[in-house]
Amino acid sequence: MILTVTLNAALDVTYRVEALVPHTTHRVAEVSERAGGKGLNVARVLHGLGEPVLATGLLGGDTGARVRRLLGEAGLGEAFVPIGDETRRTVAVVDGDATGFWEPGPVVTPGEWDAFRARYASLLGDATVVVLSGSLPRGLPADAYATLIAAAREAGARTVLDTSGAPLSAALPARPDVVKPNLHELRELLADAPADGRGAAGELVRLAGAVRALGAGAVVASAGADGLVGVTADGVWRVRPPERVAGNPTGAGDASVAALARGLRDRSPWPRILTDAVALSAAAVAAPVAGTVEAATADRFRTSVTVTEITQEFPAC
Amino acid sequence: MILTVTLNAALDVTYRVEALVPHTTHRVAEVSERAGGKGLNVARVLHGLGEPVLATGLLGGDTGARVRRLLGEAGLGEAFVPIGDETRRTVAVVDGDATGFWEPGPVVTPGEWDAFRARYASLLGDATVVVLSGSLPRGLPADAYATLIAAAREAGARTVLDTSGAPLSAALPARPDVVKPNLHELRELLADAPADGRGAAGELVRLAGAVRALGAGAVVASAGADGLVGVTADGVWRVRPPERVAGNPTGAGDASVAALARGLRDRSPWPRILTDAVALSAAAVAAPVAGTVEAATADRFRTSVTVTEITQEFPAC
Repeated sequence: MILTVTLNAALDVTYRVEALVPHTTHRVAEVSERAGGKGLNVARVLHGLGEPVLATGLLGGDTGARVRRLLGEAGLGEAFVPIGDETRRTVAVVDGDATGFWEPGPVVTPGEWDAFRARYASLLGDATVVVLSGSLPRGLPADAYATLIAAAREAGARTVLDTSGAPLSAALPARPDVVKPNLHELRELLADAPADGRGAAGELVRLAGAVRALGAGAVVASAGADGLVGVTADGVWRVRPPERVAGNPTGAGDASVAALARGLRDRSPWPRILTDAVALSAAAVAAPVAGTVEAATADRFRTSVTVTEITQEFPAC
Repeated sequence: MILTVTLNAALDVTYRVEALVPHTTHRVAEVSERAGGKGLNVARVLHGLGEPVLATGLLGGDTGARVRRLLGEAGLGEAFVPIGDETRRTVAVVDGDATGFWEPGPVVTPGEWDAFRARYASLLGDATVVVLSGSLPRGLPADAYATLIAAAREAGARTVLDTSGAPLSAALPARPDVVKPNLHELRELLADAPADGRGAAGELVRLAGAVRALGAGAVVASAGADGLVGVTADGVWRVRPPERVAGNPTGAGDASVAALARGLRDRSPWPRILTDAVALSAAAVAAPVAGTVEAATADRFRTSVTVTEITQEFPAC
């Protein structure tokens, strides 16, 4: 199965209000709650597509208990490790557009991190692919993902890493099989000047190549609504969605990570994996509920995604 | 003891942010949580002053469990009745000023209301005064407070009611011993035209007299920072704080209700009760933590509150 790791899980709360007016009181018309954090979003997409998946990570306090209950209601298999501090909430106030409030989240103790690694090691026996997603809660070492990637490799599982900043740069020496940064995250990681005269795709390929050189087996760099670029040992591809898809981009990145994970599991060729990543991402944007993917919609998009190999114009090294 | 009833309890969550900017994402610098709802605020003030108090009401779901845990941590005795639906949260985003988001709260079933009344009846045996505060959750009859007031009278307990709108008007025929509306609530209740040419205090006395005629034993009408007016069977008083108190008015009304409750319990004369109400209210405004009262501060204010009997100018009937 695919194992997803969400170390900084969240309870995502959405408030629908008529209009957000600062320094007034709002009666919330509608409250919805969802188990959140990028790794759980990936797990939900995989589960919705019928793929065997298990979600692990850290959960604590009353908010953690609520996240666990929501996972149970969704029928999602979980093996989260308890912590003493409270799992964070995110509150999105939606009045057409969204205003977000992100709680700082828990502090994890060294003993809890030890307990997590032991549990994780025991789960690796059944995992063919491990997905590591999102920020690290306070208290964890910056190289937490490096440790988990090394353990996965030892157990014979392949890894997809979707994080940014220090947790990403500290993880690259451990050689994750795939990382999935966007242009902003690549620039931040490489402290690169934005413009390079070859356009966004050219820049993505160049920066992704630099991140491969730092240790990643493959770099799948998101170009947002324009699709993605895959820089791999087998070649470099530019993959575009069939059309500008209208909808909610929340969770589209997590849907593409779900595609990368099942593609790695199936040892699919890269053009097929990247096509699936763009199709699931577009289907997530088009879905009526943010972050969900309907298989039929994804199938429809998959037939019209365009894949271009671009080894000539942009050498990967 | 004093029994406080909070049928629509809440988890009050406060987020401190640098500046609230609609349609952006905010990292919350500091999260604080408190058991909320007006009745629980009253109970906390009484408990802080060393008065024997028991808090009852309705709590449900994970949020209700969290409220119960916070009450336990505060050492506040509670006898809440469980419901199936989720207790509401209120979120206040503070960036100097406060922006509030109030969840709609639970729906209470008829069976849960029956269970509450049975529990309430059993608690009345030890109660000399019952405080009934706040809004009614959905599913309860509009005359819920009337039912609870009648039961208290039958058990020999006196009642303080602090609510507004339909729950207040439906409760008056049950003859609560004291109600505590503000000018806005009085106008709303009586559908009265605002101006009457005698100034705010004069209007308060006239409207409070009208509410007494509808069934209340006494009406203590809040004039905000200007103190209050008490219209009672024993006379009419205007009570002013010693000074304009700087601070946070949140919870000041609940502090004055706490004073009314202990005054009724002690069968104190009205001028003493009203003085205590203004002193506790001013102490709550001055307190560093909103809604708390330091006894020493209240004692200091109590010595300089002014009480004026105004039977001549504004006949009560």
